[in-house]
Amino acid sequence: MKGISGNQRVVIEHVKPAVDHGKFPIKRVVGEEVVVTADIFCDGHDEVKAAVLYRVAGKKKWAEAKMDFLGNDHFRGVFTADTYAPFEYTVMGWADHFTTWQKGLKKKFEAKQDLKVELMIGVELLDSARQQADTREKKKLDKAIATLQHKEDVTTAVITAISPEISNLMYELTDRTNATYYDQILEVEVERKKALFSSWYEIFPRSTAKNPGKHGTFKDCERLLPEIATMGFDVLYLPPIHPIGRSHRKGKNNAVTAQPGEPGSPWAIGAAEGGHKAIHPELGTLKDFKAFVSKAKSMDIEVALDIAYQCSPEHPYVKEHPQWFNWRPDGTVQYAENPPKKYQDILPINFETPDWQNLWKELKSVVDYWIEQGVNIFRVDNPHTKAFPFWQWMMGEVRREHPDVIFLAEAFTRPRIMERLGKVGFTQSYTYYTWRLSSSDIRQYMHELTQTEMREYYRPNFWPNTPDILPVPLQNSGEAPTITRLIMAATLSSNYGLYGPVYEFGVNTPHPGKEEYTDSEKYEIKHWDWHKQTRVKEIITNINRIRKENAAFHTTWNIHFAESNNDQILAYGKADKANQNIMFMAVNLDEHNVQEAMVKVPIAQLGILPGYPYIVHDLLRNEKYTWQDEWNYVRLDPHVMPVHVFRVEQSYAIS
Amino acid sequence: MKGISGNQRVVIEHVKPAVDHGKFPIKRVVGEEVVVTADIFCDGHDEVKAAVLYRVAGKKKWAEAKMDFLGNDHFRGVFTADTYAPFEYTVMGWADHFTTWQKGLKKKFEAKQDLKVELMIGVELLDSARQQADTREKKKLDKAIATLQHKEDVTTAVITAISPEISNLMYELTDRTNATYYDQILEVEVERKKALFSSWYEIFPRSTAKNPGKHGTFKDCERLLPEIATMGFDVLYLPPIHPIGRSHRKGKNNAVTAQPGEPGSPWAIGAAEGGHKAIHPELGTLKDFKAFVSKAKSMDIEVALDIAYQCSPEHPYVKEHPQWFNWRPDGTVQYAENPPKKYQDILPINFETPDWQNLWKELKSVVDYWIEQGVNIFRVDNPHTKAFPFWQWMMGEVRREHPDVIFLAEAFTRPRIMERLGKVGFTQSYTYYTWRLSSSDIRQYMHELTQTEMREYYRPNFWPNTPDILPVPLQNSGEAPTITRLIMAATLSSNYGLYGPVYEFGVNTPHPGKEEYTDSEKYEIKHWDWHKQTRVKEIITNINRIRKENAAFHTTWNIHFAESNNDQILAYGKADKANQNIMFMAVNLDEHNVQEAMVKVPIAQLGILPGYPYIVHDLLRNEKYTWQDEWNYVRLDPHVMPVHVFRVEQSYAIS
Repeated sequence: MKGISGNQRVVIEHVKPAVDHGKFPIKRVVGEEVVVTADIFCDGHDEVKAAVLYRVAGKKKWAEAKMDFLGNDHFRGVFTADTYAPFEYTVMGWADHFTTWQKGLKKKFEAKQDLKVELMIGVELLDSARQQADTREKKKLDKAIATLQHKEDVTTAVITAISPEISNLMYELTDRTNATYYDQILEVEVERKKALFSSWYEIFPRSTAKNPGKHGTFKDCERLLPEIATMGFDVLYLPPIHPIGRSHRKGKNNAVTAQPGEPGSPWAIGAAEGGHKAIHPELGTLKDFKAFVSKAKSMDIEVALDIAYQCSPEHPYVKEHPQWFNWRPDGTVQYAENPPKKYQDILPINFETPDWQNLWKELKSVVDYWIEQGVNIFRVDNPHTKAFPFWQWMMGEVRREHPDVIFLAEAFTRPRIMERLGKVGFTQSYTYYTWRLSSSDIRQYMHELTQTEMREYYRPNFWPNTPDILPVPLQNSGEAPTITRLIMAATLSSNYGLYGPVYEFGVNTPHPGKEEYTDSEKYEIKHWDWHKQTRVKEIITNINRIRKENAAFHTTWNIHFAESNNDQILAYGKADKANQNIMFMAVNLDEHNVQEAMVKVPIAQLGILPGYPYIVHDLLRNEKYTWQDEWNYVRLDPHVMPVHVFRVEQSYAIS
Repeated sequence: MKGISGNQRVVIEHVKPAVDHGKFPIKRVVGEEVVVTADIFCDGHDEVKAAVLYRVAGKKKWAEAKMDFLGNDHFRGVFTADTYAPFEYTVMGWADHFTTWQKGLKKKFEAKQDLKVELMIGVELLDSARQQADTREKKKLDKAIATLQHKEDVTTAVITAISPEISNLMYELTDRTNATYYDQILEVEVERKKALFSSWYEIFPRSTAKNPGKHGTFKDCERLLPEIATMGFDVLYLPPIHPIGRSHRKGKNNAVTAQPGEPGSPWAIGAAEGGHKAIHPELGTLKDFKAFVSKAKSMDIEVALDIAYQCSPEHPYVKEHPQWFNWRPDGTVQYAENPPKKYQDILPINFETPDWQNLWKELKSVVDYWIEQGVNIFRVDNPHTKAFPFWQWMMGEVRREHPDVIFLAEAFTRPRIMERLGKVGFTQSYTYYTWRLSSSDIRQYMHELTQTEMREYYRPNFWPNTPDILPVPLQNSGEAPTITRLIMAATLSSNYGLYGPVYEFGVNTPHPGKEEYTDSEKYEIKHWDWHKQTRVKEIITNINRIRKENAAFHTTWNIHFAESNNDQILAYGKADKANQNIMFMAVNLDEHNVQEAMVKVPIAQLGILPGYPYIVHDLLRNEKYTWQDEWNYVRLDPHVMPVHVFRVEQSYAIS
């Protein structure tokens, strides 16, 4: 019987949340709740009580959150990760003899049975609780004991014995010697709020020059910061800023051979000038870069860098660490390929190298280096083509020293792989949003992201476009789809991003037959009139302001879809935790025709009072309508404005 | 990087089956298959291969079953627990460079690219496999290498390289240095076949006397064995055979006070004559009991005893081990109660006693004692009122020495509790079948039992009645419900049981307002004409024979329900593993009216050849019909026979 605690009768099963049964931590930002559920039961007829135990990792003492019984042996308790530190949690449960006795006493009293011995048992239970009681509590207990011992007035004795006051007191003082502790301690990775609420903007720094024909610089980028701050973005993400390889350099529109003077793809990293820790000379110096980062920070914009662990054929690693690459029998390094496609300008790293420890250290040192230069956010290119154990180790090590660092996984690949990247530690992840177009597809995808185990480890970041993807609905399109894809990204997901300025400028010509841009900025330097005002730019500015001002948009997990009698009208609501800030959106998915619908506002979930009229205030257009109860009418003309972003304004406060 | 194997790139997740993530073993009987599934993937574009590893626990060497790729990173492999011993299994996966190369080669060949370097890589791969190869394999490899090196004939080289012969050879010889092993070794508890296929018959031995007014004995029971053997049962289960307490003894119909001469309930165990290891003197001696057990065995009937860990007030334990009971302030032991109901004839054991280790040892010694007397099957009374850790320990210890021992859990309680009893080791479990009456309820319940994780640890045993339960459909009923409840129990579940002879004699008068028998045998001695023939008895005899003769009935997991256009007609099929024995049942759930239906035979799942007629042969009535394809007609008159038990007989063998 070694190792068995035989008198621990309570069983605790199915404790959730737990990612892969606790193999990975769940993720929260500071101040977020953790709702813990479990099946908890005991042999026999004893009443079971349970509590969530939680603490900052490393502390000894547990805090306790009482769990509520939901029926069918299911319990639920809640705690808040209110400190910026990793948390731990587990569950305890015990057979509660006092509650069991109370329940029996009540039934026997109702059945008019003799309660003499019962009340004696009650006195024993109250008396034994005195051992744990302080002076004030002892006084209460003694008073209750006296009442139970007063044989003439059984009714008062019973009322006292089952009173909430005595129940609460006895919950605190109950003997938990035989309590069962769940056999796992589960972990919460707690991150800063930006992990959950961020607005990304992606630009190619080489396209920021004032004058055409010039290569943009960090100084040019610095000049653009007020423009970007006005638009309301708080992360400015730059594609790789490192020297670009010359051999096999790609030309305009991904041509196999570059013409003289063509700049190549920034993702073909490494040249004589250096590798992942060097800066492309034409962008400026390290000093320029640091000045730019610091200026951005002063405007509440964080600069995010691209981490693309791959090499051009001239990358210094190839000569210095040939063992990190796959060599072919003809003496060349294996380039990237997806047969029959070949990417000769890019050499992948061989993660099966026996020298993997040195490789890992070097790759981590790249991140460390840029952290030293003031960068705290990294967008990771194609993480799904590098080994998962590496990511888990690298991000874990980096965050131990720098908990503020955010990693965004750029993976558009198979579901299990995208999920795994979230599990091994990526803060945020690209998603399939880009291809979820219909009402039912969007609802189903949001369900998957927010109502399944994914919610615990996968923070979506919705991108309507990227330099790699000009999705079909945006191709050669008018303004309506540009607006709807933007507004849905920004209001469905608390993390979202845009690749600009093509988005707000309506640059939307596809490369024939592909979901890509023609004359893609990936292969050439563009010249933009950065200060041009467009209607889409105005809407971006507005929605970013609305997102900041309305707490309902600061999380992704609070989505409630509305029924709609028209598939072309997607409607959904979000409310903050206290239901003080309630937003309701309606989107016309048909870019050509006016659509109208009756939509069923999920008023119970959003905290809208039934039976009273409420105002829905469109913050984009500053229009107000009076609605009541669940079913209400919307009409959206794509040629005028294909979306409503309503704030719900109630005259009657919810108590 | 301690503890990390950095170049193991493959990830293995969600390995199933695994009960509570491997906390408990899965259950199989000898010869049953284990179908293992997992999500297995790798970074990048490499092809992934995987295998199930399995072995008899304690052996060092793993056997290997290749897993098939099912799409979406999901794999499936199968092995058979073909030895009567506990098994272990796990999963391995690896990035398969040869398969990756084959796939690329094929695509490049189709794209008419130059394959010179590709074929050189192939030669390297084949050559490195030579290290693991035996002489015969080396010869094959050398031949392939020569073909690949023959620069003039690229087509033959490609055909050779991607041939099944080379693929299979390279699968065997592949370098698995960097393979990933799943981080858990999972367990299979392998039991004897009776754990999955058994027919139980329950009788009160005290009601077996030849003459009225007499107390039945083991000798009387012995005399009845040929009758029971003829009916086809293979487990004969007896309620407790121990001395019955005298104080607070219950009378007829559970009267609070017994009249002089009333025998009391056999579950009020313990008296001056002894406790759980003693025999009620009127039943006979230990020698009689052993003779009876041995005689039964000679007729392929195993005697099952009742284990009811509770005591009458005179049980020797009360004086010898007062610390095992709950004492009340008035100096009495707490009796069982479910307030306001009181069971003063039964004292429950306090599993929270600090002396739990001695308690456990003593309780286990009861089982050990009866095993010594030749008993190998135990029906455990109310296991849900004794601590789960005790059961897990006790059954584990007993099975280590006596793997043949079968425990049946008599628990009709909440789902999580019944599930837990299965997990901690009960071989078989009572179920909610007794209350699943409608077509949809039965389908849903069978789904839960056979298509969820329960299938891995919970072996149902279907009882249409018990001494405690005369369910509503059987109360004051005609023959039809008696037949349908019997036939469904016996054909839905491979384990089933009856409480007789009331079942076959149609004793079905309820105690007013209860799902219990009036004049219940629990409180009085009955006298039955054991040799009386009834139609129900004939049907029992037939269905037990049919069950034995048709392998499709030897498992519960092979159920396939048929669509039916009439809710009153429930239809389902079962086939053995090879689809050699195919059974199809139709049941009229309406006891009053003739019902007809078109039912959709699941021919694909049962292995019935489409497009050809087949015979359905009713084995109960020896009638034959010719059916074809899926939809066929049935008509059942409850006044004639409310069920069909068809064997499907095909003229065209399935190749």
